[in-house]
Amino acid sequence: MTYKVGILGLGTVGMGVAKILQDPLGRHPLLPEIEIGRVGVRSLNKQRDVAIAPTVITDDLEAIVNDETVDIVVEVMGGIEPAKSLILKAIGNGKHIVTANKAVIARHGNEIFTAAKQKGVYVMLEAAACGGIPVIQALKQSLGANRISELTGIVNGTTNYILSRMYFEGADFDATLAEAQQLGYAEADPTADVDGYDAADKMAILASLAFGDRVKLEDIYREGIRSITSADIGYAKELGFTIKLLGIAKRAKSKSNNNDSSLEIRVHPTLLPIQHPLANIHGVTNAVRIEGDPIGEVVFSGPGAGSGATASAVVADIINVVAALKSMPNQVNQLMGCSHEHYAKIAPIADTVTQFYARLLTHDKPGVIGDLGTAFGKHSVSLNAILQKTTVHDGLAEIVVVTQRVSECNFQKAIAAIRELPTMHSIPTILRVL
Amino acid sequence: MTYKVGILGLGTVGMGVAKILQDPLGRHPLLPEIEIGRVGVRSLNKQRDVAIAPTVITDDLEAIVNDETVDIVVEVMGGIEPAKSLILKAIGNGKHIVTANKAVIARHGNEIFTAAKQKGVYVMLEAAACGGIPVIQALKQSLGANRISELTGIVNGTTNYILSRMYFEGADFDATLAEAQQLGYAEADPTADVDGYDAADKMAILASLAFGDRVKLEDIYREGIRSITSADIGYAKELGFTIKLLGIAKRAKSKSNNNDSSLEIRVHPTLLPIQHPLANIHGVTNAVRIEGDPIGEVVFSGPGAGSGATASAVVADIINVVAALKSMPNQVNQLMGCSHEHYAKIAPIADTVTQFYARLLTHDKPGVIGDLGTAFGKHSVSLNAILQKTTVHDGLAEIVVVTQRVSECNFQKAIAAIRELPTMHSIPTILRVL
Repeated sequence: MTYKVGILGLGTVGMGVAKILQDPLGRHPLLPEIEIGRVGVRSLNKQRDVAIAPTVITDDLEAIVNDETVDIVVEVMGGIEPAKSLILKAIGNGKHIVTANKAVIARHGNEIFTAAKQKGVYVMLEAAACGGIPVIQALKQSLGANRISELTGIVNGTTNYILSRMYFEGADFDATLAEAQQLGYAEADPTADVDGYDAADKMAILASLAFGDRVKLEDIYREGIRSITSADIGYAKELGFTIKLLGIAKRAKSKSNNNDSSLEIRVHPTLLPIQHPLANIHGVTNAVRIEGDPIGEVVFSGPGAGSGATASAVVADIINVVAALKSMPNQVNQLMGCSHEHYAKIAPIADTVTQFYARLLTHDKPGVIGDLGTAFGKHSVSLNAILQKTTVHDGLAEIVVVTQRVSECNFQKAIAAIRELPTMHSIPTILRVL
Repeated sequence: MTYKVGILGLGTVGMGVAKILQDPLGRHPLLPEIEIGRVGVRSLNKQRDVAIAPTVITDDLEAIVNDETVDIVVEVMGGIEPAKSLILKAIGNGKHIVTANKAVIARHGNEIFTAAKQKGVYVMLEAAACGGIPVIQALKQSLGANRISELTGIVNGTTNYILSRMYFEGADFDATLAEAQQLGYAEADPTADVDGYDAADKMAILASLAFGDRVKLEDIYREGIRSITSADIGYAKELGFTIKLLGIAKRAKSKSNNNDSSLEIRVHPTLLPIQHPLANIHGVTNAVRIEGDPIGEVVFSGPGAGSGATASAVVADIINVVAALKSMPNQVNQLMGCSHEHYAKIAPIADTVTQFYARLLTHDKPGVIGDLGTAFGKHSVSLNAILQKTTVHDGLAEIVVVTQRVSECNFQKAIAAIRELPTMHSIPTILRVL
């Protein structure tokens, strides 16, 4: 018996999926039982680098999700609509879903998984976070014995490429972004990547699997990397750090080991010590570090995007659904389904306790450091390191401070006070330290 | 409905498993449906750090594998016998198996999987290679879309601990081994670890999953780390390398992309460039790098041993079996079973093409380098780097060479000729380079 997939979208990922299914030799023995039943595209006339029979290809996407012969709908078209409606319609028709669409899952996962549960179908999403790295399956099926306490990741390849270039070459953000755009590593409109939206989508998905509750995207604190300058990278290096756009999700400190405790979830550029396992993940590579009891620390790294890597994850999901269907056509395997019913309580960013890095420009006058130290001290912010470069330009001195672990709330109060100091010119950069 | 596990062995791993099952809060929601039915131990009177009811505990291991109420037998006793016989008996009785026993699987996997297939039961072995790192599940369920071309791993924590200490502290092998034994990182009899037997067991398991054929343990080329001196580590550093005990499995070059081609599988100390993703895996941590088409490169790292990490993998396997049983009591999921029927053809080590490192002691006379170069040249061995330290002791000079990629066969012929040179004293170390 063969299983028929209907593929929605024939862009780089869709073509990658089609190529694997058409060329099964040397891959998993189940692949020959999987057939490309229908492929939906926007334009029938476009030249494509993959051979699909004209009878299989259609621009009527509704026809695919309504096709009785299709067992699994593979949604690799991207975007919110019509992807979301097509997924819901396919579920309504009893079809299993494999999707690479982080945006739809992060925003409408609730509706989609509720519908899937009602219908007893699978919604598989390995490709929706970290491309080819099998971190979703690890969270769903391999780490269940653990209480996960923290999941930290470099989950956006574009920003990691930019920050890696800035770190190794001392280049500026704007120039590096322009180059990344030329090379196809960044979109013409880079907002989703450089402002952290894409990373937040992925963290919503990963955190909900790691901690067993649904996560509302709007609860995730998010900062992008536009404010990072080559000066910041230089100071970070001098202090033994690198700068990465990290997604950080963890149980809020006060109530650890308790399923009902709240979570901290945030996406922001972060100084991390060069010995940290994520510090040496360079270029477009993604990596996720998971800490749990009793396992300790595990790290997964690999290609976070690209046709081949994403297609690898999509086809793995198809294989998993087919293997499950072969042995149990009418019953959903609980480990492959979604069992979350509740939303996680997310702690406000003001409750975060972390180290901070700040780069300040001051008028080069005696007593500046004293003023700074007093202002931080007044708000219970202890300092860990302080660097001063006098007279960087226009009679201004540059001062970099790294605090000890302090509450975000106290730190922001201290910073507000420091902005009012007569000796202060400006505070160009504030970053958090892992 | 609850599922009953019978645990064979209550050492560190068995206790880790029992503790997780007794304390399910905040872990996977399926855990409360899993019950410790029986626990088999060698001595009933030993004091143990886990509370098991006296009615559950027994020293009659046969009674456990014959117990009709037991659904899953968890074998965490280690060793070949009676573990192997108990596993086979349990399978004969229709019980599913979860094992952490790499030695039994690497040696008797054929017999065990054949029996399991006949009976339609699962044999799960995530804990048998790389402890807590979910690399087995990744190979079985997440990377099926790929043609795997290479799997390289640091799969033995003891030797990685020793080599890391030697690298960072310049310590000698014997002193570091003694210290590792004191700290409990190495056994009183360290043979299995330092001579590469444990790594070979794990590579047999990993390679068979990566390449889809069974692997005979005796076909794996194996060298341990006893010959590595602090001098070698020093030279490696100077040349931009570190030294790791690596397991290397790959498709032999000539027939890539062909399922019937032969494999190279070897375990030996290896110089690898410090930029390599496995070069920065230190201490007892394990890591596996997998290269495939289309995924590219993925790397998994984490604790390779220890009570918690191994128990995490064992319990993950139990959860997977229970999830499968709940939805399909009478059908095996093909992705969780073993589909291999044939043995892989393993290329002889003489066919390997790789770079070599050799440390030679010569009499400090003119013409030595010329003699060496001529001998290597005669056997088509080109050199990549050569370091000479004159008069290290007793009028001897130390020369280190790194070759280009050459055939093992040619290199060994060159070395045999070099041993006969009148200017040659001895060749203390020969290593391969990744």
